[in-house]
Amino acid sequence: MSEPAKQEYLVGVDLGGTKILAGVFTSNLKLVGTAKLSTKANRGPSAVIDRIARCVQDAVDECDLDLKQVRAVGVGAPGSIDPEAGKVIFSPNMPGWENIPLKKELEKRLELPTFVENDCNVCTLGVYEAELEAKPKHVIGIFVGTGIGGGLILDGKLFSGYNLTAGEVGHMVLEVNGPKCGCGNKGCFEALASRTAIFRRIQTAIKDGQKTVLTDMLGQNLDDLRSGDLRKAIRRGDKFVEKVIEEAAEYIGIAVGNLINIINPEVIVLGGGVLDALEDEMMAIIVETARDYAMPGTAKGIEIIASKLGDEAGITGGAVLARRMLKAQPKN
Amino acid sequence: MSEPAKQEYLVGVDLGGTKILAGVFTSNLKLVGTAKLSTKANRGPSAVIDRIARCVQDAVDECDLDLKQVRAVGVGAPGSIDPEAGKVIFSPNMPGWENIPLKKELEKRLELPTFVENDCNVCTLGVYEAELEAKPKHVIGIFVGTGIGGGLILDGKLFSGYNLTAGEVGHMVLEVNGPKCGCGNKGCFEALASRTAIFRRIQTAIKDGQKTVLTDMLGQNLDDLRSGDLRKAIRRGDKFVEKVIEEAAEYIGIAVGNLINIINPEVIVLGGGVLDALEDEMMAIIVETARDYAMPGTAKGIEIIASKLGDEAGITGGAVLARRMLKAQPKN
Repeated sequence: MSEPAKQEYLVGVDLGGTKILAGVFTSNLKLVGTAKLSTKANRGPSAVIDRIARCVQDAVDECDLDLKQVRAVGVGAPGSIDPEAGKVIFSPNMPGWENIPLKKELEKRLELPTFVENDCNVCTLGVYEAELEAKPKHVIGIFVGTGIGGGLILDGKLFSGYNLTAGEVGHMVLEVNGPKCGCGNKGCFEALASRTAIFRRIQTAIKDGQKTVLTDMLGQNLDDLRSGDLRKAIRRGDKFVEKVIEEAAEYIGIAVGNLINIINPEVIVLGGGVLDALEDEMMAIIVETARDYAMPGTAKGIEIIASKLGDEAGITGGAVLARRMLKAQPKN
Repeated sequence: MSEPAKQEYLVGVDLGGTKILAGVFTSNLKLVGTAKLSTKANRGPSAVIDRIARCVQDAVDECDLDLKQVRAVGVGAPGSIDPEAGKVIFSPNMPGWENIPLKKELEKRLELPTFVENDCNVCTLGVYEAELEAKPKHVIGIFVGTGIGGGLILDGKLFSGYNLTAGEVGHMVLEVNGPKCGCGNKGCFEALASRTAIFRRIQTAIKDGQKTVLTDMLGQNLDDLRSGDLRKAIRRGDKFVEKVIEEAAEYIGIAVGNLINIINPEVIVLGGGVLDALEDEMMAIIVETARDYAMPGTAKGIEIIASKLGDEAGITGGAVLARRMLKAQPKN
């Protein structure tokens, strides 16, 4: 008598400051279905962990599966994470998240092995396993969205560094005395090329009298401005928006050049909301600038590419994390 | 009948654009003696390799030893190096050095196993083995002299990256549109904080009428200005020179902060002629600035220290390289 296959699936979770996304994957990383919940971070860690568990259950149910058919859960969480203890050490955008035993709490609620890593590390893992077939030894992922984060894969493994915080590429200073960053310093990569930085530059220019089709599209205050609107504006011939995006792409290219000089990875992969929406407008400039700034000989054969995973990078990476950690664990 | 101990010694070589330094070490890295020769780089690679071999022989002879008592030679060479092939791929400051099989040529001349690595990698190795007793997993060496170079030790091993060029920290852009760098870009770390950058800033200011005791010491053109003169000027109360050095120290601190954010090593060790001469004037500023620029939590417990090896970092590292490579080789 044949029973339905058990524990065949992996669930990846992308925990963000505003939303939780969970995806159910086959062991070959085929996405079966997803679920989404708002994070409600203001309700505090315990309520958020309840919501993560619910989102996982919703995704599993959406696929007509049962939690018993899931082998493990992998979570990408923002901030500084201790992956061995499965703890969120500190997460600047979620109130109360200090030393939260996320792994233990989720395992209690879901009764499934659960693994936790930094969100950008998880995204880099997802891209690495799902997109980079040649499995290069050294890969850097850079994710440009509201902020800018990164992940390092060195010798095929996530590299976390001494305080488990490696990959904070968004706070590499590119322009001493440049614009103020959320972190308190000036001229960080994130303060020059994130969605926040791009939007601020546009809004300041509009206040100074700059004309742009964006105000026709969204009103003078640009309520609800999204990265996709920038693409639409450029395609409608808005030279001002085009220039702002070119400038951001140049900063991204300089950051990539710096990373080629310092770490010399084989592949640099770019993702995040800004890149997903503006890949056609930005990638050529990023690649050209990076090769310009890399020292002679250092960029030879190095690939600088855009991820196609889009929103799914985080949940894919969560599933990859779960699969890797299961393999690394001693068998009972 | 007891013969004198054979093959007990290691020779480390520091190949520079202007001079060659060779040091004989015991297997415990105790320095027994050194020899120095000018490089005469303009005579071309073959003549320079002859001079390296002669410098090794001179150092061995200086110690009343014989080449037969040497187990191996380790060479730190400038530029991009293929350590496996023992080749200098390209060395920008030495005419004709392209694809030069330095290992093979030296082995022919010396009849000793010889190993070659990038000079900054070798210096980092030297500091790692000779100075850092705790043997931290992840170390970054930064060497500030005429230029600025670096080396990465990750998981206890030299990290070279895809094109074997990792560690080019001197060409990390810190100030977009900053001063022009020898590499053709603008605002590189090297163009802001190397001896060359410091000297240029001082010379420009003197031309603009700036008063400094340096001109009393060395004449209006500052002939033969050395890092040590800057220290003397500061100790004589020269506020202008003090300010220039503080500024350079701040840039070094920002670069260290960037590297903590990106790689999160356990130890960052600073060396090179500028640091050797101006450690007391610069280190406190470097450490404070780096901790300021590192993201909260990332610098916890990380050590930022000055190497005490001075000029001996390169030859010590050469000996360490030789010892490591001998251990890694299959026994006959």
